[in-house]
Amino acid sequence: MELSVACPVDFHVHLRQGTLRELVTPHVRKGGFFTAYVMPNLKPPITNTDQALAYKAQLEAIDPNVKYLMTLYLSPELTPEEIRKAKAAGIVGVKSYPRGVTTNSDGGIESYELYYPVFRAMEENDMVLNLHGEVPSDATKNIHVLNAEPQFLPHLHALHKAFPKLRIVLEHATTRAAVEAVKACGSTVACTITPHHLALTVDDWAGQSWNYCKPVAKYPDDREALRAVIKEGHPRFFLGSDSAPHPPHTKSTSTPACGCAAGIYTSPILLPLVAHILESFGALDKLEGYVSTFGRQFYKEESNFGTKVTLKRIPEGQSNMIEEKFMLGEESVVPFWAGKPLNWCIA
Amino acid sequence: MELSVACPVDFHVHLRQGTLRELVTPHVRKGGFFTAYVMPNLKPPITNTDQALAYKAQLEAIDPNVKYLMTLYLSPELTPEEIRKAKAAGIVGVKSYPRGVTTNSDGGIESYELYYPVFRAMEENDMVLNLHGEVPSDATKNIHVLNAEPQFLPHLHALHKAFPKLRIVLEHATTRAAVEAVKACGSTVACTITPHHLALTVDDWAGQSWNYCKPVAKYPDDREALRAVIKEGHPRFFLGSDSAPHPPHTKSTSTPACGCAAGIYTSPILLPLVAHILESFGALDKLEGYVSTFGRQFYKEESNFGTKVTLKRIPEGQSNMIEEKFMLGEESVVPFWAGKPLNWCIA
Repeated sequence: MELSVACPVDFHVHLRQGTLRELVTPHVRKGGFFTAYVMPNLKPPITNTDQALAYKAQLEAIDPNVKYLMTLYLSPELTPEEIRKAKAAGIVGVKSYPRGVTTNSDGGIESYELYYPVFRAMEENDMVLNLHGEVPSDATKNIHVLNAEPQFLPHLHALHKAFPKLRIVLEHATTRAAVEAVKACGSTVACTITPHHLALTVDDWAGQSWNYCKPVAKYPDDREALRAVIKEGHPRFFLGSDSAPHPPHTKSTSTPACGCAAGIYTSPILLPLVAHILESFGALDKLEGYVSTFGRQFYKEESNFGTKVTLKRIPEGQSNMIEEKFMLGEESVVPFWAGKPLNWCIA
Repeated sequence: MELSVACPVDFHVHLRQGTLRELVTPHVRKGGFFTAYVMPNLKPPITNTDQALAYKAQLEAIDPNVKYLMTLYLSPELTPEEIRKAKAAGIVGVKSYPRGVTTNSDGGIESYELYYPVFRAMEENDMVLNLHGEVPSDATKNIHVLNAEPQFLPHLHALHKAFPKLRIVLEHATTRAAVEAVKACGSTVACTITPHHLALTVDDWAGQSWNYCKPVAKYPDDREALRAVIKEGHPRFFLGSDSAPHPPHTKSTSTPACGCAAGIYTSPILLPLVAHILESFGALDKLEGYVSTFGRQFYKEESNFGTKVTLKRIPEGQSNMIEEKFMLGEESVVPFWAGKPLNWCIA
């Protein structure tokens, strides 16, 4: 059995720096993708047009056959003038990280009102605002990793109300509340969903740091809501893998002193993984909408860069195990579901 | 500053088998305790009187200066006759593990009605029923590690209603719902609370397997409810450490294939740790009730075995770091808060 999808796009991916970037950038195509929406949370973060263009050139030097859609990191140095410059240079979006909630978010924002002039310029220039939708934990307010996303949703509604024409993407939604919030918004608000959040629940990362990511996978009922909106084929919900490579020693918890890095790495297996997971809950017929059509429509990414990608179902009795590790020099990264079988491969 | 408590008792401790038992049993006294209520979840579990007495003799051979209060593992082989024999032999309680929820619980129970004849015999013979109060996760019913305890509480109420004179201890409560449920019961129902559940929340074990235990630490509001009931000095809430040693390689998550063992080890630092934590939320005046008086009253453990234990506050500027590791031969175990400072030590 074969299955083809036209020009899939990963609308949320981390390609990092240094040797790790050399290792993971070619995995975009390996995973079946020719267009990648690239996150700006480097050290230091990508906060202006020149940095973004330089980063894009570095990625193109590694693999010129991928189209890199670039983003800026929302920070106080971002101005309406810089937004206009970014737009003219082809930069697509601006990513907002609340302070301290995930990898390299120490410079994240604390209040949105400060950025209203920037958002106004983005709305006028038709750029996309990408939201990491979590508030920081605060024990005194009973805010923790499991309700950090629902607690963020009033910010989403406030931004949408203030800037109804601004295209906003709530990134990597994990809760029923987030799905309902995005549905309740107008056509300018969309949502990415990762494949790992379609697979995992809290029980999978309890005591297993390799399944730990931010936002954390939530309860079974939340996973059901994510699956349902994919199954429904809702055009404002589409793939952003949030594929986030981390060196293995930062993912394991060999001593009590080291908390592990948040992130799950899916790039090199992405399209087969998505097919495997969608098939597991009866949504294989929504594959093309989820990985290509819906996201491209929302982003107005109509260039048809890339090509049709064909997946083949692994015949009964044969196996297609996910690699245990990918290496380059002294750098390595362990993919999600390492060593487990997938039912699909790229033909 | 010094602080003395009379005859503290740890009403929930795991002393294991083999070399690990040799290593951890002396830690009961090292942690300031002379009486220990010993869990029966060995491999194979302690399911009858003869096994329990043999295990007790093994523990006494390691440290004869501790009084070991013994328990049986609730299983189909337990009969009313065996309950009477156990009572006559000085065995204090029976521990119930729902199937599959924690370490060595594969033989745990699935339905309580089967055991009503045993509970009737326990009630008649004034033995204590110790409940691991969680139901197994079930994604189809939205049951997961964070609501497994609230979902168990109807079982507690049903047992208390069916056997109002049976003394029942809900072990290691972690939620506001559990605290309220136990309060709502009559005087025959009590509750142990661990020191680590007075310290941790879900954010502490997210991505940090060394803080992973079952039941998992819950939300800040739940921790607040546990602290409040200790601060209140409620006589049916007292210490059971659930100190659970595991070899370090089973606590770390060095690869995605290995989930980590559930358990936190506090025995060798127990009394100073409890003082440190109670002081942190203004409950130091409740120390003796929590670690001695309340549990002894409920268990009718009036023998005054042991002695007064005196704690000394570490003077400002001095430090009292928790050991990184305890070793015996090739066996080792890492304590909770390894390498962190405690404000108290045993005088």
